[in-house]
Amino acid sequence: MPHIALPEGIPGIAAGFAYRPETSKPMRELAHILLHEPGTLTPGERELIATYVSSRNRTHFCASSHGAAAASHLGGFEAVEAIKADVETAPVSAKLKTLLHIAGKVQQDGKLVTPADIEAARKEGATDLEIHDTVLIAAAFSMYNRYVDGLGTWQPEEQSMYTQMGKRLAEVGYRNPGLEAGALKERETANV
Amino acid sequence: MPHIALPEGIPGIAAGFAYRPETSKPMRELAHILLHEPGTLTPGERELIATYVSSRNRTHFCASSHGAAAASHLGGFEAVEAIKADVETAPVSAKLKTLLHIAGKVQQDGKLVTPADIEAARKEGATDLEIHDTVLIAAAFSMYNRYVDGLGTWQPEEQSMYTQMGKRLAEVGYRNPGLEAGALKERETANV
Repeated sequence: MPHIALPEGIPGIAAGFAYRPETSKPMRELAHILLHEPGTLTPGERELIATYVSSRNRTHFCASSHGAAAASHLGGFEAVEAIKADVETAPVSAKLKTLLHIAGKVQQDGKLVTPADIEAARKEGATDLEIHDTVLIAAAFSMYNRYVDGLGTWQPEEQSMYTQMGKRLAEVGYRNPGLEAGALKERETANV
Repeated sequence: MPHIALPEGIPGIAAGFAYRPETSKPMRELAHILLHEPGTLTPGERELIATYVSSRNRTHFCASSHGAAAASHLGGFEAVEAIKADVETAPVSAKLKTLLHIAGKVQQDGKLVTPADIEAARKEGATDLEIHDTVLIAAAFSMYNRYVDGLGTWQPEEQSMYTQMGKRLAEVGYRNPGLEAGALKERETANV
């Protein structure tokens, strides 16, 4: 049960967003820029970074929803499951592996990132902007994950809801409020 | 030295903000709503929560600048120094102590917050919105701290710069870009 009186029937971060629309706006905007707007890292790659950090933080809602968004962009769950198990052997580019390594350090503590980590990413062709955005995606999901967990939000177990949610997030991004709630309603209607 | 080519001579988070204005806008907006806009927790209390989290993450720039903002609101550094040393004996309200306790758990992992922690805060008069904002301030500083550290930003040691910066932040808040840079420039001019 949520720790405070969040609106009922809304899963994960969407419950916090519905409770406090003022703070939801910049939080959604940041996610939209980092994950959905055009960039030299594909949206699928950026969703994998978000998934990786959320998985390491064991935040089921974020790991599942962004994992599903990544899978929707990439055409399947193979890379999503693989990076959760072992980045080194995952079917992703050598560049993305170096960026996931940096993201994993930021997830623990930004001070753990070393010049050698940055050099390894540059050697695989990572630009400064890609490194910046990797650090910020990892930092931002350190926030989103703690927000979802710290409020004690409802984090459904069923994969079907996340798959549908991920598809919509991959299509339209994060600016539009009520996306997750909308996905939930569709699921409930479909179940009737 | 910063890990990527951030603009030179700009300290801490302001260097990241100058490097990527698109993401700086929602990040500033979120801080402004959480720390500066009117609320039932005073800006001084909210800056203490930000300072506490940043201090526990050992992010010198954020702990010093928000500590100085808190001191500017509260009329001195006594509570700032006290909460860093020991919340239980600090000269702050019983309610704020319970909220700092929740913030300290979110700083580690949102899943550590228990119903008993929430009950203790409610017993001292904390509202749901105050608990929500405490969780989100702690989550947001888990982001800001990792961003500042993960980019390897320049975090000056001298307290004088932070005192001046904190005074300005306490006065005008976080929406206006270039505040920290402006404070630095003033310091440099004053030193000539």
